[in-house]
Amino acid sequence: MALIVQKYGGTSVGSVERIKNVARRVAKWKAAGHDLVVVPSAMAGETNRLIALAQSLQQHPDPRELDVIASTGEQVTIGLLTMALLELGVKARSYTGWQVKVLTDSAFTKSRIISIDQDKIRKDLKDGYLAVVAGFQGMDDQGNVTTLGRGGSDTSAVALAAALKAEECHIYTDVDGVYTTDPRLVPEARRLRTITFEEMLEMAGAGSKVLQIRSVEFAGKYKVPTRVLSSLTDPAIPVAEEGQSGTLITFEEDPNMAMEKAVISGVAFNRDEAKITVHDVPDRPGIAYAILGPIADAHIDVDVIVQNVGHDGMTDMTFTVHRNDYAKAMKLLKDQVKPHIKCRDVTGDERIAKVSIVGMGMRSHAGIAAQMFRTLAEEGINIQMISTSEIKITVVIEEKYTELAVRVLHKAFELDQA
Amino acid sequence: MALIVQKYGGTSVGSVERIKNVARRVAKWKAAGHDLVVVPSAMAGETNRLIALAQSLQQHPDPRELDVIASTGEQVTIGLLTMALLELGVKARSYTGWQVKVLTDSAFTKSRIISIDQDKIRKDLKDGYLAVVAGFQGMDDQGNVTTLGRGGSDTSAVALAAALKAEECHIYTDVDGVYTTDPRLVPEARRLRTITFEEMLEMAGAGSKVLQIRSVEFAGKYKVPTRVLSSLTDPAIPVAEEGQSGTLITFEEDPNMAMEKAVISGVAFNRDEAKITVHDVPDRPGIAYAILGPIADAHIDVDVIVQNVGHDGMTDMTFTVHRNDYAKAMKLLKDQVKPHIKCRDVTGDERIAKVSIVGMGMRSHAGIAAQMFRTLAEEGINIQMISTSEIKITVVIEEKYTELAVRVLHKAFELDQA
Repeated sequence: MALIVQKYGGTSVGSVERIKNVARRVAKWKAAGHDLVVVPSAMAGETNRLIALAQSLQQHPDPRELDVIASTGEQVTIGLLTMALLELGVKARSYTGWQVKVLTDSAFTKSRIISIDQDKIRKDLKDGYLAVVAGFQGMDDQGNVTTLGRGGSDTSAVALAAALKAEECHIYTDVDGVYTTDPRLVPEARRLRTITFEEMLEMAGAGSKVLQIRSVEFAGKYKVPTRVLSSLTDPAIPVAEEGQSGTLITFEEDPNMAMEKAVISGVAFNRDEAKITVHDVPDRPGIAYAILGPIADAHIDVDVIVQNVGHDGMTDMTFTVHRNDYAKAMKLLKDQVKPHIKCRDVTGDERIAKVSIVGMGMRSHAGIAAQMFRTLAEEGINIQMISTSEIKITVVIEEKYTELAVRVLHKAFELDQA
Repeated sequence: MALIVQKYGGTSVGSVERIKNVARRVAKWKAAGHDLVVVPSAMAGETNRLIALAQSLQQHPDPRELDVIASTGEQVTIGLLTMALLELGVKARSYTGWQVKVLTDSAFTKSRIISIDQDKIRKDLKDGYLAVVAGFQGMDDQGNVTTLGRGGSDTSAVALAAALKAEECHIYTDVDGVYTTDPRLVPEARRLRTITFEEMLEMAGAGSKVLQIRSVEFAGKYKVPTRVLSSLTDPAIPVAEEGQSGTLITFEEDPNMAMEKAVISGVAFNRDEAKITVHDVPDRPGIAYAILGPIADAHIDVDVIVQNVGHDGMTDMTFTVHRNDYAKAMKLLKDQVKPHIKCRDVTGDERIAKVSIVGMGMRSHAGIAAQMFRTLAEEGINIQMISTSEIKITVVIEEKYTELAVRVLHKAFELDQA
């Protein structure tokens, strides 16, 4: 008998029939003797519908009021799922974010969880109830409704699992785990039975959309064993089998497993970014801030940043931003930054892709980067930018080579081999 | 400068365009120097949609969970209306029932308001903000979400007006006031400029659907001047004119007005009820309870009750119930009550209508009842039951005579004369 937190995504609760399926699945785990806390998202499409409604009144909706509206999607689902459980004879009770007291900061539409009050849930579990808690939402210390931003239900679930010291956090989604790369691009992609927290973090940052990056950070910080698994399998599949399915995010590297573990765990990619280069800036302290400060002030996120050694007292700085922010960033740099820092030019390119290889094994193996670059060179793919972390190597290439690069890297690092 | 609480019904906020219209209307009142608290309902159709969704999971939805779901309709509207106000440059802030602390009892789906915490609203008004408060919903002392039942937003608005000691409570709806009878039945029906609280209460009880009866009770208990007016007029109509439109529910009878006031204020009717008669019951103490106790225990509301003087130690008891409860009540009486009290028979009739005349003037004028009965007799309409209060006379007649009865009574009491 263990305490398990299970999160079900919007597709998993996207219709009345699917909600009934989730209830059957949850009831099965309960019947197997486990204590359950269930965190559903809003029904698929509902959050988008609510945001569109808000935008029909304000082009840039007031963040406080947007959270009041957007949080209703999850509130409806907790009621519906609880009813489905009651209908199966399972004792259950729903809680909104403010009822559990998921305390967050006041950064509306992208709040961060500060603490979670466990009293009500602990009492319910003790009384044999199952708690259904709304994901994505919380309350600040002024009693305002807050939301955690896109994919926030993952974070809610992991945070609840951490607060309750749950044995495992199950993230049910419409894929059956974390793959070596996107199976839509590479049919040979394999499901990973385990992945370390650090690898998962790099995969999420590099473009794998299985888990929201903040939930992975939370899982890492509080060492919550988190399993990604599919809600589209038969709900009647035995608990013993289902509990071993999907991909488990681990925290301790098992030395025995490391022996046979592949050097690289996966290939991730992202086509949502654009590249900007500021040419011939004076190579002196403070120049990076003079360029990126105004970008940050305009709430534009910057991803890969590369600055090479200078020449003749000048250097170039290149970085990537989300494509939605590209035009805004270019205008800002040309109109405000360029006159100020007196650089030669600002150029950009939207047709780029970011491709990364990720793996804990990289730490102890030399030559991984060389092998990556040779593989790409053999296909005539030019590398525009390179950035590395301890367990990830990222290159920026021309967008049209994305599929080719992912496929050849997947093969070169033998990710298609079991 | 006065504090005014304005309530807008589901039709008034039924679309994005209509919400913008409400915002323009509210902004106009604010610009005229008034403090405003605005209480919107859910968008028309939304509450029904949510209840249908709940019923697709449980035929008889769990009341606690149903309230969690149903309350989201108003939560969405407060956000949308607040955005529309912000867009017009009006400082505004939304509050759910639990954020204001509308404390209710725990009778889910039909809770009653116990108290309202004014602190946040008072502070907002002082700071020049306008408060947009969700109608229909509250919170019990355990922190559960509760709702007030159908039409509960009227009650929320009047209760807020009472708590805040507002100068007036405006109930905006899709009719432009209270009429002498339903204008769809009698084209000569006239709008009443004022109506006393007692008359309004009897009109609501007798079938007029303009205001929820509980909101009228609240208005009476706390002497909240309440005005029913239309949200379908031009939003730009001057405040001075709009503030005199509709129908004002009054509490003090102005002696000067009483002089010229009509004896009867209105004719109300209701075709939602069914009649049940328990024949030849022993005419002894406790028998009424023996019949109506089990009915009340089954949560069936009883309206008109008539019991005449007995004969030979026996009497008949007749009462009306809502047609939805008719079959259930008949079964209960035949299976359980009849064997117990040993009455001769239980009979019923679903094809009845209740027609009432209401008016404060009735108190001081003899012969009103006689005139009513003569008017009906002249049209050959048989009276099946009679029930009277101090300012209302109700008769139960065969359903097919409803329109005729209402029309001839409206004319006989000169309600068509200004």
